[in-house]
Amino acid sequence: MSLLEELTGDLPAGRIVTDPDVLTRYLHDEAEWAPYEAPLAVVRPRTAADVQTVVRRCVAHRTPVIARGAGTGLSGGANAIAGSVMLSFEQMNAIARIDELERLAVVQPGVVNDDLRSACAEHGLWYPPDPASAPWSTIGGNVATNAGGLCCVKYGVTRDYVLGMQIVTGTGELVRLGRSTAKGVAGYDLAGLMVGSEGTLGIITEITVRLRPRRPAERTVAGYFDSIVSAGRAVEAVIGSGVIPSALELIDRHCLRAVDDWKKLGLSVDADVVLLGRVDTVGAAGESEAETMRACFEKCGATWSAVSTDETESEALFQARRLAYPALERLGPLLTEDICVPIGAVPDMLGRIEEIAAHHDILIANIAHAGDGNLHPLLITPPGDTAARTRAQSAFTDIIDAALRFGGTVTGEHGVGLLKMNGLAKELDPVVMSMHHAVKQSLDPYGILNPGKVIPTP
Amino acid sequence: MSLLEELTGDLPAGRIVTDPDVLTRYLHDEAEWAPYEAPLAVVRPRTAADVQTVVRRCVAHRTPVIARGAGTGLSGGANAIAGSVMLSFEQMNAIARIDELERLAVVQPGVVNDDLRSACAEHGLWYPPDPASAPWSTIGGNVATNAGGLCCVKYGVTRDYVLGMQIVTGTGELVRLGRSTAKGVAGYDLAGLMVGSEGTLGIITEITVRLRPRRPAERTVAGYFDSIVSAGRAVEAVIGSGVIPSALELIDRHCLRAVDDWKKLGLSVDADVVLLGRVDTVGAAGESEAETMRACFEKCGATWSAVSTDETESEALFQARRLAYPALERLGPLLTEDICVPIGAVPDMLGRIEEIAAHHDILIANIAHAGDGNLHPLLITPPGDTAARTRAQSAFTDIIDAALRFGGTVTGEHGVGLLKMNGLAKELDPVVMSMHHAVKQSLDPYGILNPGKVIPTP
Repeated sequence: MSLLEELTGDLPAGRIVTDPDVLTRYLHDEAEWAPYEAPLAVVRPRTAADVQTVVRRCVAHRTPVIARGAGTGLSGGANAIAGSVMLSFEQMNAIARIDELERLAVVQPGVVNDDLRSACAEHGLWYPPDPASAPWSTIGGNVATNAGGLCCVKYGVTRDYVLGMQIVTGTGELVRLGRSTAKGVAGYDLAGLMVGSEGTLGIITEITVRLRPRRPAERTVAGYFDSIVSAGRAVEAVIGSGVIPSALELIDRHCLRAVDDWKKLGLSVDADVVLLGRVDTVGAAGESEAETMRACFEKCGATWSAVSTDETESEALFQARRLAYPALERLGPLLTEDICVPIGAVPDMLGRIEEIAAHHDILIANIAHAGDGNLHPLLITPPGDTAARTRAQSAFTDIIDAALRFGGTVTGEHGVGLLKMNGLAKELDPVVMSMHHAVKQSLDPYGILNPGKVIPTP
Repeated sequence: MSLLEELTGDLPAGRIVTDPDVLTRYLHDEAEWAPYEAPLAVVRPRTAADVQTVVRRCVAHRTPVIARGAGTGLSGGANAIAGSVMLSFEQMNAIARIDELERLAVVQPGVVNDDLRSACAEHGLWYPPDPASAPWSTIGGNVATNAGGLCCVKYGVTRDYVLGMQIVTGTGELVRLGRSTAKGVAGYDLAGLMVGSEGTLGIITEITVRLRPRRPAERTVAGYFDSIVSAGRAVEAVIGSGVIPSALELIDRHCLRAVDDWKKLGLSVDADVVLLGRVDTVGAAGESEAETMRACFEKCGATWSAVSTDETESEALFQARRLAYPALERLGPLLTEDICVPIGAVPDMLGRIEEIAAHHDILIANIAHAGDGNLHPLLITPPGDTAARTRAQSAFTDIIDAALRFGGTVTGEHGVGLLKMNGLAKELDPVVMSMHHAVKQSLDPYGILNPGKVIPTP
């Protein structure tokens, strides 16, 4: 029997999609420059048992199986492989439990990040990881890529909130990894190993995440700069001051304009670059931290800086930050960078990006989780301009190389997927790459879990 | 040539110890109930190259190699195996770098925890993980066991502070894992996998840790209780109140008395159980949190409770907490438990420990990182009393079984070593255990890295 016939027999009706028109929705994530091929089928499981059924059949047929959340990834990690089975988790979107005392939530992988955050808020709790894609992206996808976000600079990344999970292994077994206690060192940290492994070591069917109490109110500090390098120096100054901001974002004129043209937020910023800082320390200490941040902005050449007292205005600026990517995407194909460099290298790296843009004659807009040194230069090419695409790819490579020279990494939070496979090979010692292959082989002995992503197929 | 002859030829003079009298210092950690055997030799490396030389020779001879920090472990993880080579890191104790801007330190594995903390303090920085063994234990050992401590309840465990490391692999290669940037998702989290793997997946030769700014001053809240179950309820109430304490420790009368008899701290506590809480939120918010904590103590039956205004007195109580283990050890062989249960199960688990003590006629003293649900019942046996040792071992097993029934784990922070191997087999699904074996095999193909610890040799 063919795999498709077996799956049709095994699974309840309505789980399998093969209609080519519908399949197009599942072919790739938002890294549209990454290649993709036609899958055999998409399965929309409703239970862990459905997932196990699919993986077991795929093991028997040595067929690639690819987990997919909302498809908001930016590295091609969820792109379809020829003849593969795509598992799309949109129908496994239940929040099984929110426990106020233990401060944890148990969720299916298809739960949308913002939905979890809203549900937690009703219990006076907070799930911190807040990628800009939070209104659409899923916890499963966030875990698979170890997603970051705006509040990471103070509160850490997805990895820091994953306590445990249920997965289907590469041999088709359904198991639990990790724990639901505050601490635990029983055996290897296999739950941690799964985080950020982009579906290449196991298929996640349930996740237990830590929560925090409701977050304190924040103060916003904005600074306008004429030069991106000055803004970079201000970031270095803020971190050097000992203040731990609850956000420290950079957004340039291109991004602000694109968002305003689209959403009419009424942003009228007369600056090349804006830094948006937040602090959530309560009371007088918070006031003092906000003023320290503002003073750092001013010292580094801000043309204007202020602690915002207008919540509407500051929320509009953060909204602009979150919408920068989709807003720019409307203007043409975007190649998104995701380097992370030491804080001390932020000014020079931002300067180097400007030089690379000029050298390759490419428009590069910038957004950044600047307080983490996590920069997202966005390489914009006019639709249909093949020559510009080629130049953009050269610039992309140059940015990666520069980040590595500054002691940085090729991906801060988007993952390797397809777009950063070459970069990863540059970053890792060949021996470490061989350790990756050994671990992959040990947990996916049939090579069916998202093969050809992250690390090359041997 | 014999392995010893080869090592003698390869290594500079003074590295190798074979004198039986000196070897006795390196035979076991503080889990004296765990078995140990005679090693072939102890090597005290001074460089990563020395370590690599030892591992390569051990690969060729298929000889076990065991890394050892200060020997303060409590699970037998560093105990000698017959014919093995012990690597003792006491001479690799340099702090290579403390970077104020990047807030990180690069250290050799033999650096003592408190020495790193003192050096950081000189730069206005703080390395949070604070196991009670901090005056003696090393960062290498802390990383190998993913050590916890008093401040974990707010600031997390060692794992949360490890950015990267240099290791010698099971095939004798010297490589770097992880990163030195704030964020990074380039490839599998192999640095994280090494943390807590107790020397079974690689030998750590250098560690890069994250630091925090100098910690704020703390307020101490003490509560006296007539019953350990009431104290457990108070812990549940504090966590349920939404306050995140910077410490929430439990210490009972046996421990206080043993410390006072030893150190003459002038503790005169008229209570069966003491809860010691701390909050480090600054300003009025911190005052309010301390008062909330005190009210939780009172509501749950504290016979006395107060926000301490006397720093000397409160430091004496915390000092007693840290010294409880060595103080009790002076009284006879101690079997140390390290279970971690959900916060909601803390009162019942403490009650169950009392029942188990009565049932097996064993004196069980209690210390606990109570705010994390991480309990350390200490099973005390009179020196030379074989029957008591047997009863203690039964009680030990009963405590583990109870913790698992409460949804807990068999080890919160001490690691599996030898003492928790049976417990681990109870906690993990056999499929998950086979994943452990697969990962171990993939990174230690010759089976030389601390074999027979954590997971059984296949």
